[in-house]
Amino acid sequence: MKPKLTLIGAGPGDPDLITWKGIKALQRARVILYDALVNDDLLAYTQQDSLKIFVGKRGGKPSVSQERINQLIVSYALVYGEVVRLKGGDPFIFGRGYEEINFAVKSGLETEVVPGISSATGLTALKNISLTQRGISDGVWILTATRAGNELNPELELAARSSSTVVILMGVKKLPQIVEFYKQNGRDQLPVMIIQNGSTENEKIVQGTIETIEEIARNEKIGSPAIIVIGEVLESLESNLNLPAINAYLN
Amino acid sequence: MKPKLTLIGAGPGDPDLITWKGIKALQRARVILYDALVNDDLLAYTQQDSLKIFVGKRGGKPSVSQERINQLIVSYALVYGEVVRLKGGDPFIFGRGYEEINFAVKSGLETEVVPGISSATGLTALKNISLTQRGISDGVWILTATRAGNELNPELELAARSSSTVVILMGVKKLPQIVEFYKQNGRDQLPVMIIQNGSTENEKIVQGTIETIEEIARNEKIGSPAIIVIGEVLESLESNLNLPAINAYLN
Repeated sequence: MKPKLTLIGAGPGDPDLITWKGIKALQRARVILYDALVNDDLLAYTQQDSLKIFVGKRGGKPSVSQERINQLIVSYALVYGEVVRLKGGDPFIFGRGYEEINFAVKSGLETEVVPGISSATGLTALKNISLTQRGISDGVWILTATRAGNELNPELELAARSSSTVVILMGVKKLPQIVEFYKQNGRDQLPVMIIQNGSTENEKIVQGTIETIEEIARNEKIGSPAIIVIGEVLESLESNLNLPAINAYLN
Repeated sequence: MKPKLTLIGAGPGDPDLITWKGIKALQRARVILYDALVNDDLLAYTQQDSLKIFVGKRGGKPSVSQERINQLIVSYALVYGEVVRLKGGDPFIFGRGYEEINFAVKSGLETEVVPGISSATGLTALKNISLTQRGISDGVWILTATRAGNELNPELELAARSSSTVVILMGVKKLPQIVEFYKQNGRDQLPVMIIQNGSTENEKIVQGTIETIEEIARNEKIGSPAIIVIGEVLESLESNLNLPAINAYLN
């Protein structure tokens, strides 16, 4: 048997939002490499004597480099036959999972990807918010705020002209620039929601409009990790749905 | 206890790609309403004496109307305390799950949504294709090809100018129009992949470019349900990854 990398998406935070396929892989795993965004409760599915290796960023300590993680994957796979790599959300929606799969393939490993629920789509669903709605939004655009080198993603300018719901990951620090693109298109009243630490006990949610969200986020000290959701689907929510239930989440 | 609607996303086809939270809901359910896009194997998780009611479209028979489904949800919830509604993919990514949640809320039901893996992101992941890649694609834009009234989604024109990976659902019949938008932007060589019946035993995949995909899809008799993926992330696949493994899926 060829040594193997199995890359699993852990989902947006709640450990019950991993897939059944992912749980099966954790149960059989002898080596698990996991990230900071993964809920530690998921490790309960693993065998007691399996190697559980944390490779994420935590506290003030320097994180394990991507190069080092790649090397660990290959080394452990050669020794143990399979490495299970557990990443938060979906490994192929801004998870850099591709770099690990690519390195593994080049190193002669078999690879398998078990998709996960991205925080970009799962967190709003848990709040009864549908990212698409007939007649309101016929698309969902998921973007990262920055490209390689911390440069602002130029696609944000196009996104500010779209009627699709826009979900921005890793965007809190770029909120002023994002808001500016929308203002340039006269969309000051468009609803915005920010979800920090989604689907965990530290979850924090703020809502506003393009006009107000910067001040609200600053006052509420919103930080990372967070997703920014922009679009009219949030407005229909206020008129039709159970907003009180959502406000209950406001700290 | 308030009567409740629990809306579950079943994932893209493979029954193991439902979440653990979804399985738990199926296990406790006394009434399940399920769609045509749901893998029947998932019903094995339910209690033997539970009511399993098919409300999808199958064969030549007329489908159950959305209005009727809404009414069934409320009626059964009032009698049995909870109705589990099982939909393919993610119910809030073009699943019309919102209409059911909205009706349930208006009818006084408690509601819970368990997100699922959308075919839009899950099917490519299963093929080792990352929809985002640093330096190649800093976004994923998921669109439906048609709006209410079978009208072409005007956002497709904007999407044809985006460098994000574009995933189009329910788009096979609109392929000529989609291709035309990309050609207007001189993007004839952009890679395109179509996945029909993804992650099931009837899966069928074709690959080409904006220039060639129409003819390829016609020759291979590609039909619905299918997703269309457009973007440079497919190109990097050819040079770096295990394309032979993907070609093995070609019928």
